[in-house]
Amino acid sequence: MSLPTLETTPDLAAEQVAVLAAEEVLAKAQSISEEEIFAAHEGGKLSVELTEPLVDRRDLSIAYTPGVAQVSRAIAAQPELAKTHTWASRLVAVVSDGTAVLGLGDIGVSASLPVMEGKSALFKRFGGVNSIPIVLDTTDPDEFVETIVRIAPSFGAVNLEDISAPRCFEIEQRLIEALDMPVMHDDQHGTAVVVLAALTNALKVVGKTLADTRIVIAGAGAAGIAVAEILLASGVTDLIVVDSRGTLHTERDDIEHMKLDMAQRSNPRGVAGGTAEALQGADVFIGVSSSKVPEDHIAAMAEHAIVFALSNPDPEVDPVVAQRHAAVVATGRSDYPNQINNVLAFPGIFRGALDAGARRITLEMKLAAAAAIAGLVADPTPEMIVPNPFAPGVAEAVAEAVVRCARAGE
Amino acid sequence: MSLPTLETTPDLAAEQVAVLAAEEVLAKAQSISEEEIFAAHEGGKLSVELTEPLVDRRDLSIAYTPGVAQVSRAIAAQPELAKTHTWASRLVAVVSDGTAVLGLGDIGVSASLPVMEGKSALFKRFGGVNSIPIVLDTTDPDEFVETIVRIAPSFGAVNLEDISAPRCFEIEQRLIEALDMPVMHDDQHGTAVVVLAALTNALKVVGKTLADTRIVIAGAGAAGIAVAEILLASGVTDLIVVDSRGTLHTERDDIEHMKLDMAQRSNPRGVAGGTAEALQGADVFIGVSSSKVPEDHIAAMAEHAIVFALSNPDPEVDPVVAQRHAAVVATGRSDYPNQINNVLAFPGIFRGALDAGARRITLEMKLAAAAAIAGLVADPTPEMIVPNPFAPGVAEAVAEAVVRCARAGE
Repeated sequence: MSLPTLETTPDLAAEQVAVLAAEEVLAKAQSISEEEIFAAHEGGKLSVELTEPLVDRRDLSIAYTPGVAQVSRAIAAQPELAKTHTWASRLVAVVSDGTAVLGLGDIGVSASLPVMEGKSALFKRFGGVNSIPIVLDTTDPDEFVETIVRIAPSFGAVNLEDISAPRCFEIEQRLIEALDMPVMHDDQHGTAVVVLAALTNALKVVGKTLADTRIVIAGAGAAGIAVAEILLASGVTDLIVVDSRGTLHTERDDIEHMKLDMAQRSNPRGVAGGTAEALQGADVFIGVSSSKVPEDHIAAMAEHAIVFALSNPDPEVDPVVAQRHAAVVATGRSDYPNQINNVLAFPGIFRGALDAGARRITLEMKLAAAAAIAGLVADPTPEMIVPNPFAPGVAEAVAEAVVRCARAGE
Repeated sequence: MSLPTLETTPDLAAEQVAVLAAEEVLAKAQSISEEEIFAAHEGGKLSVELTEPLVDRRDLSIAYTPGVAQVSRAIAAQPELAKTHTWASRLVAVVSDGTAVLGLGDIGVSASLPVMEGKSALFKRFGGVNSIPIVLDTTDPDEFVETIVRIAPSFGAVNLEDISAPRCFEIEQRLIEALDMPVMHDDQHGTAVVVLAALTNALKVVGKTLADTRIVIAGAGAAGIAVAEILLASGVTDLIVVDSRGTLHTERDDIEHMKLDMAQRSNPRGVAGGTAEALQGADVFIGVSSSKVPEDHIAAMAEHAIVFALSNPDPEVDPVVAQRHAAVVATGRSDYPNQINNVLAFPGIFRGALDAGARRITLEMKLAAAAAIAGLVADPTPEMIVPNPFAPGVAEAVAEAVVRCARAGE
C-alpha cells in the first residue's frame, strides 16, 4: 500500500498538538507494524449494541411496537421525557468536516472517519459515554452549523473535532448559541484544559505562579488561541502569542479577527519579532505549531524554564535538547515523559456535562476540569506533571468537578 | 402519567401497517404493563461499543494517534479504503422527521426517537447490522434531502422511516438519486415486500395466481402505493387502489402526482365508487388504511378470498368476522395468526445490500426478498403464510437473495 507523505501546516490544527506523535518513531518504539494498524481498523472500531436482549415476541412488543408507541405518545405530551427515555440526550456527536485532521491538514471527510471513530472509542473507553461520528460533506461554516442544528434532536452534546482555524472559532460559537446542549471544540478546549493542568503542576515543580510567569505560545491556531484564553482567564498577565509571521502585537497590520483580538489582550510589553525576542527571559514556552525553535532561543529563557513542545510528529524543539535548558519538559508524544494528551480531559468533561444536564460547557467547568486533572498528581516531579490516561478515576474526577461546577452555577 | 389519545389518519403512514398492534389489547394479552414498557426504555435502548478493547498505551497508539493517522492518510490517497477500514460503509442511518410516527401521526421529532431506536435495535438483533437513529428537526423536503446528503459520508445506507405521504415519495426518490448508497423507505418497500411474500403463500393456499387475481388495496399512502407498485411489477393486472374518497380511476379530478399516476396504471375496468364496488368479486383485499370495511363488502368477495386487514390498532375488518368469508386472513397484529411484520424484510434487505456493496436497492432485490421470505414457509396453510420473525435464518435467507440479485445485476 503506498501512502502519501505527511504534511504539516504552519499554524497546526489542534488535535495533533495533544495526541499525534511521530508516527514512524513511535510505531517502531512500540513495535507496531503497519499491518497490525490496518488490521485493527478493518471493518471499523465501533458497533451499536442493544442494552437489553430481544429474545421473544414479548420483548419485541416492549422495545418496538406496540409498546414503543406508549413511550412516543408520552414524549409527544411531555417532551422532557425524551431526556430519560431515549439514548439521545446522553449521546455525543463527534462532528468534523475533515479540514484539519490530526497533523495531516485538509485530507477530506472520509479520511477523517477513522479518527472520529477512534475518538468515539475513547469517549466510551475513558468516559463511558456513547458517541457517534458525524462527518460533514461541506466546508462552508453556514452549512456546517445549519446541518448540525437540523440533526440536533438525535443527540445530547456536540464534540467538534479537526476543523481548521479560523473557521472552527465561528462554527463553535454559532453552535453554542444555536443549540441547547453542550458544544465543545476539543482541539481548542480539551487541549487548553490539559495544558493548564500540566502547567499548574510544572509551576509547582519550579516554584513559580501563573500570575508572575512570562509565557510564550508558538501557534495561533485553534489550540494556540484556546490555550492563551484559558491562561488569561487563569490570571496570566505576561503572555505572548507567536504566529508564523511573528509575535501578535497591536502594531501588526496583517492580522484580524481572533488574532487581532488576542494581540489586544496579550503581549503587554509590546514585544515585536519572533520566538527569539519573545523567549528572552520567558518562564514558559508552549509550542502548538510545527515551526521549529532553535536551541539558542530556548537557552535564552529564564531559569527553571518550562518547555511544552507539543507539535507532532516533530516537537518544536527536541525534548532531549530542551532538557539542557529547562527544568520541566512535556511533549505530545507517549514515548517521552509528560505526554499532554486530550484524552485526560474530554471524556470527563462531556461525561460531567451530561451527568449534570448542563446546557453549556462553561469556562468555570474547564478550569475545574484542569484543576481536577492537576490534582490527580499528588506530588508533581519534572517527569510526572500529568496523570497516566489509563490511571483509574481520571474521567470520573474530571466529571465530578464539572458536575459540581454545573450545580454551583445553577 | 397522562397520555394523549391515539389518533389515526385516513391514509395511514405505513409503519403501523406492518407492526403496530392494538396497544391496549395486545399489552393485556401479553401481560405487559405500562410500568414495564417505560422501565425498558429508560436511558435508551442502544449503546456504542468498541469492537476491540483498549487496554494500554499500545492499543491507544493503534486505534487512535499515532496509528490512526496511517489509516487516514491511506484513505486520503485511496478513498475506497474507507469502505473496508471504517464502520461507516456498513452503517445504516435510520432517518425520520417524525411526521408519521407509527399510527400516531405527526407527533414531532423527539417523540419519534424511541421508535427509531427500536428500529436500530431490530436491525442489530435480526440482521446483525449497525445503525444509528438520525432524526431531523425540519419537515421541509428540500432541507431533509440536503441535510442527509451533507452527513452521508458518515454512513453506508439510509433507512427512511415514518415520513408522511406524499412527502415520503419525493424524499426517497431524491435521496436515491443524490446518494451513491442504498436508500429505502421501509414503510413503503418493507411493507410491500412482506405483503407480496404473504400473498404469494396465501395464493398457494387457495390455488390462485397473481396474474388471474383481482386485488383491492384500501389506502393510497406510503404503504398502499408501494404495495400496488410491487404487485403490478409481479404481474397483477386487475388492481384497484381505494383512498379515503373512493377508488382511484382516471375520471377522478381530485387526485394528482402518485395517486393520478397509479390511477392511470391500475383499475383497468374503471370501477368507480368505494370498497363496496371495488370488492365485488375481488379475490384479495389488502387494507393499509384505518377506514373500516363493513362485513357485507367482504362477504361480496369471490370464493376463497384473501383478506389482509393490516391497519393498526384496529384492522379494517375484525379478523374473526373476515374469517367467515375469507379462506386466508392476515393482520399486522401478533395476537392473531399471519402477522405481516416488516421485520421479516428490512434487516435482511439492508444486510444483503451492504454485503453486496450495492449502490441501489432495486425492484429485483425486493422481489427476490419477497420470494425468499415466502420460500421459508415450506407448506403454507391458512394460518401460516409467513415465517415467525424469530425463526432462525430469516434475515440470512433474505440477505442471500439480495446478494445473489445484486451480483446477477452487475
